[in-house]
Amino acid sequence: MAMIGGGRDAFIGAIHRIAINMDGQIDIVAGALSVNPEVAIASGHDLFLDEERIYTDYKTMLEKEAAMSKDKRIDFVSIVTPNFVHFDPAIMALEKGFHVAIEKPMTFTLDEAKKLKAKVDETGLTLLLTHTYTGYPIIKQAKQMVKSGMFGKIRKIYVEYPQGWLSTFLEGSNNKQAAWRTDPKRSGIAGAMGDIGTHAFNMAEYVSGLQVTHLCANLNTVVDVRMLDDDGATFMKFNNGATGVLMATQIAAGEENCVKVRVYGEKGGLEWKQEDANTLLVRWLDKPTEIYRAGTGYVSSYASHNSRTPAGHPEGYLEAFANLYRNFTLTVRAKMNGEKPKDEWLDFPGVDDGIRGMAFIENVVASGKSDKKWTDFVV
Amino acid sequence: MAMIGGGRDAFIGAIHRIAINMDGQIDIVAGALSVNPEVAIASGHDLFLDEERIYTDYKTMLEKEAAMSKDKRIDFVSIVTPNFVHFDPAIMALEKGFHVAIEKPMTFTLDEAKKLKAKVDETGLTLLLTHTYTGYPIIKQAKQMVKSGMFGKIRKIYVEYPQGWLSTFLEGSNNKQAAWRTDPKRSGIAGAMGDIGTHAFNMAEYVSGLQVTHLCANLNTVVDVRMLDDDGATFMKFNNGATGVLMATQIAAGEENCVKVRVYGEKGGLEWKQEDANTLLVRWLDKPTEIYRAGTGYVSSYASHNSRTPAGHPEGYLEAFANLYRNFTLTVRAKMNGEKPKDEWLDFPGVDDGIRGMAFIENVVASGKSDKKWTDFVV
Amino acid sequence: MAMIGGGRDAFIGAIHRIAINMDGQIDIVAGALSVNPEVAIASGHDLFLDEERIYTDYKTMLEKEAAMSKDKRIDFVSIVTPNFVHFDPAIMALEKGFHVAIEKPMTFTLDEAKKLKAKVDETGLTLLLTHTYTGYPIIKQAKQMVKSGMFGKIRKIYVEYPQGWLSTFLEGSNNKQAAWRTDPKRSGIAGAMGDIGTHAFNMAEYVSGLQVTHLCANLNTVVDVRMLDDDGATFMKFNNGATGVLMATQIAAGEENCVKVRVYGEKGGLEWKQEDANTLLVRWLDKPTEIYRAGTGYVSSYASHNSRTPAGHPEGYLEAFANLYRNFTLTVRAKMNGEKPKDEWLDFPGVDDGIRGMAFIENVVASGKSDKKWTDFVV
Amino acid sequence: MAMIGGGRDAFIGAIHRIAINMDGQIDIVAGALSVNPEVAIASGHDLFLDEERIYTDYKTMLEKEAAMSKDKRIDFVSIVTPNFVHFDPAIMALEKGFHVAIEKPMTFTLDEAKKLKAKVDETGLTLLLTHTYTGYPIIKQAKQMVKSGMFGKIRKIYVEYPQGWLSTFLEGSNNKQAAWRTDPKRSGIAGAMGDIGTHAFNMAEYVSGLQVTHLCANLNTVVDVRMLDDDGATFMKFNNGATGVLMATQIAAGEENCVKVRVYGEKGGLEWKQEDANTLLVRWLDKPTEIYRAGTGYVSSYASHNSRTPAGHPEGYLEAFANLYRNFTLTVRAKMNGEKPKDEWLDFPGVDDGIRGMAFIENVVASGKSDKKWTDFVV
Repeated sequence: MAMIGGGRDAFIGAIHRIAINMDGQIDIVAGALSVNPEVAIASGHDLFLDEERIYTDYKTMLEKEAAMSKDKRIDFVSIVTPNFVHFDPAIMALEKGFHVAIEKPMTFTLDEAKKLKAKVDETGLTLLLTHTYTGYPIIKQAKQMVKSGMFGKIRKIYVEYPQGWLSTFLEGSNNKQAAWRTDPKRSGIAGAMGDIGTHAFNMAEYVSGLQVTHLCANLNTVVDVRMLDDDGATFMKFNNGATGVLMATQIAAGEENCVKVRVYGEKGGLEWKQEDANTLLVRWLDKPTEIYRAGTGYVSSYASHNSRTPAGHPEGYLEAFANLYRNFTLTVRAKMNGEKPKDEWLDFPGVDDGIRGMAFIENVVASGKSDKKWTDFVV
Repeated sequence: MAMIGGGRDAFIGAIHRIAINMDGQIDIVAGALSVNPEVAIASGHDLFLDEERIYTDYKTMLEKEAAMSKDKRIDFVSIVTPNFVHFDPAIMALEKGFHVAIEKPMTFTLDEAKKLKAKVDETGLTLLLTHTYTGYPIIKQAKQMVKSGMFGKIRKIYVEYPQGWLSTFLEGSNNKQAAWRTDPKRSGIAGAMGDIGTHAFNMAEYVSGLQVTHLCANLNTVVDVRMLDDDGATFMKFNNGATGVLMATQIAAGEENCVKVRVYGEKGGLEWKQEDANTLLVRWLDKPTEIYRAGTGYVSSYASHNSRTPAGHPEGYLEAFANLYRNFTLTVRAKMNGEKPKDEWLDFPGVDDGIRGMAFIENVVASGKSDKKWTDFVV
Repeated sequence: MAMIGGGRDAFIGAIHRIAINMDGQIDIVAGALSVNPEVAIASGHDLFLDEERIYTDYKTMLEKEAAMSKDKRIDFVSIVTPNFVHFDPAIMALEKGFHVAIEKPMTFTLDEAKKLKAKVDETGLTLLLTHTYTGYPIIKQAKQMVKSGMFGKIRKIYVEYPQGWLSTFLEGSNNKQAAWRTDPKRSGIAGAMGDIGTHAFNMAEYVSGLQVTHLCANLNTVVDVRMLDDDGATFMKFNNGATGVLMATQIAAGEENCVKVRVYGEKGGLEWKQEDANTLLVRWLDKPTEIYRAGTGYVSSYASHNSRTPAGHPEGYLEAFANLYRNFTLTVRAKMNGEKPKDEWLDFPGVDDGIRGMAFIENVVASGKSDKKWTDFVV
Repeated sequence: MAMIGGGRDAFIGAIHRIAINMDGQIDIVAGALSVNPEVAIASGHDLFLDEERIYTDYKTMLEKEAAMSKDKRIDFVSIVTPNFVHFDPAIMALEKGFHVAIEKPMTFTLDEAKKLKAKVDETGLTLLLTHTYTGYPIIKQAKQMVKSGMFGKIRKIYVEYPQGWLSTFLEGSNNKQAAWRTDPKRSGIAGAMGDIGTHAFNMAEYVSGLQVTHLCANLNTVVDVRMLDDDGATFMKFNNGATGVLMATQIAAGEENCVKVRVYGEKGGLEWKQEDANTLLVRWLDKPTEIYRAGTGYVSSYASHNSRTPAGHPEGYLEAFANLYRNFTLTVRAKMNGEKPKDEWLDFPGVDDGIRGMAFIENVVASGKSDKKWTDFVV
């Protein structure tokens, strides 16, 4: 496969590579790793790429790789650039016949997202959207338990993603990560809501199996000179009548990345937080709370398929990330071999999640600006 | 002192008595413990009251006690009846010259609350409102730390109170606690928001030292046939520009009573939850989170004044409750002796908190009904 | 009842009084509260005792109270003096016909303990030994679960009591609590092992329902100039073949009072620690760990009998302490009324636990001095 | 590099490969993956090895690889076979000029360990011993903090490793992992103490920087028909006068792999457990406990060098494992390039730890059999 973006001075590219490498099933053989040619070349050397497959722009790469023989050319690309450079390379890669892995949010606008879906549908290729948190084995367990109906009808969903790293005007002090994420030209119309709110939103819909139908949002720019929201919350109505609250902030000083999701049904509910990523608390109306743990013998096939170690050896964010790539490549390989992928493999975020995510961004920003309490969630 | 309500089949009255007894400074010598005369008398015997001070209605009690000699008659009454029987006995007690302790919410309506305050002001007597959670020693520490300015300007407040006990139609099955709490005639215009939302609201204002100015609420009646809200959330704007989210629900199946408050300022923040009631997490932008613990040598005088044991011996809900009574009686006694109460003693919830609480109920219900996103918090 | 010791400058006496007061079932009407007459009198005034029932020595008190009419005189005494003043007042109280509550360790020597038991047996009176930790409701649940056999044969027991407060030579700096506890003339032959090791030992035997038969101890005096052990551990063999490890230290800098017990059987096990006193973790070989919580509907009658609030309102050390007194007085009252106490009431530590505790002290010290690995636990 | 053992049906080999792959710095190019030729070949195909570098015995592999040109042949081998097949391939690999990574315990006997060290010294090659737990970033922080002297003299060390998976006679039911670990011919003279006791021992010495000088052990075979210890504990004396307790068991039903270490000095101490692997609790005599977290800005260079993600994205067991390989390969590469490895790189377990570990096994078994309380720790 090949990587677009993710050179020396990037953050998420290195994370993708660890996830890609982990299981020894994927080789990074090409890359257009930076818009800066010098960085692109030096980064290619870092990855021990063959000289001729270190590219300085992704268009050339996609052209040249597409022209190679089938056994040599790449199978898929990973797009790990800032948000505004997601759509074009994704479309081109699909057109050239390559599967695509892409960082979230999927595109710059909802409109792009829809076009991308059309292209995916047209080509029959596979798209992975790296909503990492759905890759945790015990989150798979959570989803299966809700799906089984054991909690009865779902009634209430709380999701939150508190961070503190943007408590100060970090983008003013040469922090590259802060700079593009707070810049509407590169990040899009949302700040915190796009960067982490989308993760929380995705978790809410993924674990509950429900879809949001209405929003009532309050978005804030707490650090005055900042150009985008750095804090917010939204009420949600779901398509089964359940309601929920989503909170995402980047100015909760001292908070790290403790994404948390709670879902309550008629008979019980569950709670998960990233800080204790291998544990799922399962609550019941009338019996003791249970602690489900990743890697045990009693979890579902979806959870065990996504574990690499026995219970008690913590598996973390990078393993969750690697699960996305593993399921994506298992699926792609099965399709390439004309086999039917297992249900467990197919359970990775894709283009439909990307559309939901972009719709969340546009709808939550619109709701934030509205004086009306509730606004429809329009896709 | 004397108790109004809280007979054999009541819940909160027994809790009050434990809190009253704990420090050996208050004697329960009289009571009108139930509207049911038989229960009132039997309950009086349970408490070893003198036969002649077991009353079957509070009016008689207040009359007769007021007529006794100063060294014999009660000093204060505790009103632990359902919400709709708070105002009348409180007013009469004050008029008879007795200090008053009263369960929250303080009255049935905001209007009553204001009249009660006028009466308190007029008589110069002291009123205790039992917002128990502010009685925890480490919550005192939290308030003092915020007040000191060490976190900079406060920017974000999250409070939540999740319960699960009303997940089913419990009021339909002879549960006395559920019955009056879900009955607008006895509980007032709010269900969950009045019962536990007021606690969360009180914690938000108490710990932050701020006041809510605007609300945007979503109230729900999840169990269909129920007559009042059993679930809700509200966004809040505070008078310093901070924003917040308050969540209160009684249909989060499996949840107990884990009230939780988080406050974030420019430089750090803090987190407390009742499940771990002796611990305060103090977060910082750039250094390790600190675990402040009740009963230690390094906490403020406000925290240590409200502890009874050395660190590591858990003090719980009943001790927090007893702290309210202890501070109230220390204050009352000082005033009776013509002494100035210490600042630490004066730190208990009173009539102003009661007005804020009743205003919260009326405003949050109004906001819940409004199509407008934000409504003013009117007192 | 009357208190012996526990005056103004004492620590544990005040704790006993809170426990005694909490449920409004016991009146403190007399006291010999200090060996120092001035302190004794002032302390009596603090407790609002009648002038004539403030005594300056316990012998006079026991004489005079015994001479009073049955309806006026005390029913029992609480002995809260340092260890070396336990035996004499306890014997005298029993001889005068009073029931006895007594701080642990029960006596100064095992020999005294045996004599005390003989006196209890002879008089038919009731003795309460305040091993507080067994008073926690969820510890009652733990004992009942082990007893039911649901874990199969018990195989391994870990108990620990880490404290840090004696990390420095505190007894050299006018700390009264440190002074007597580290003084062999007042504390006995053991320091940490007597003060807190006995608690850990009591928990091990109480929860498991087993008895120790052999010890292999390592006792240390870490702070050089100290006169008694301030740290130690012992291996244990139990009478069913199980083994265990007990750790007790007062030099674990930064530790508070997190007593912890873990018991493992063939099919599962359980874990409790005082820091999270309302929670019992129940582990199983092949299913999720369960979180049993005090105050819930699913716990045994032993656990619910010892709770005062619904689940989620933390009950702490003082409630556990009060449970001892409540069960003791329920039992005493039933016996006085010629009724059979309920099994739940009888579940409080008594003179047999006191003998086991004193035997632990003598045996663990002997084992600590022995070059042999294992020594018999001799009673 | 090449792997010896670790074929399709092995456990730890797959873990090693994930750790090897993670950072994209090491290629697995050869393997003698099983003693069963068919498994060896099939496993080689699984790893996409070149046909000619799939070997069916390690001797042939080492011969052939050594004969290859320097740019083609492997740099090091990983030995992931059961304990009794560690020594021979390690010696041969060193003799052929290959660096060696090896699973713990390093050898079958202490004598072999010493010979292996002699060979390492003789060849000047580098040996990595995969004591995984020392690879956690926050454990690096722990070691550096102790080393800095900020806690004063270390006085007490508790380490424990509780597992429950051998609670039943699993080796009787075709469980390969259980079978060899409980078989003295393949595992050596110790069961639980060799398998996990060595990890606990290594953690005690690694974090404290101290060395054990005396042991007093109690080893048990709880599951009757088992051939080796499955449970045990040992007291320890350290070379600075500190004492400690080590507990390791495989019959604690319901326990997973929660290795835990606590170290206490004169002024404070620290606590770490694998269940919460990114957190270090730092306790102090007179101020709040601090929560040090991996990936933050305030940790030492040793901790940050061993992190891959920002704070709050959990890094787990596999990342800790990968840290061992990364530091090993950074060191080897630096040496190959004639450069001085950084101190942070050199911080991985090696042949000296292997000798200490084997000495622990032999000494703890000897102590377990001894009637004397204390036995010298002889190397």
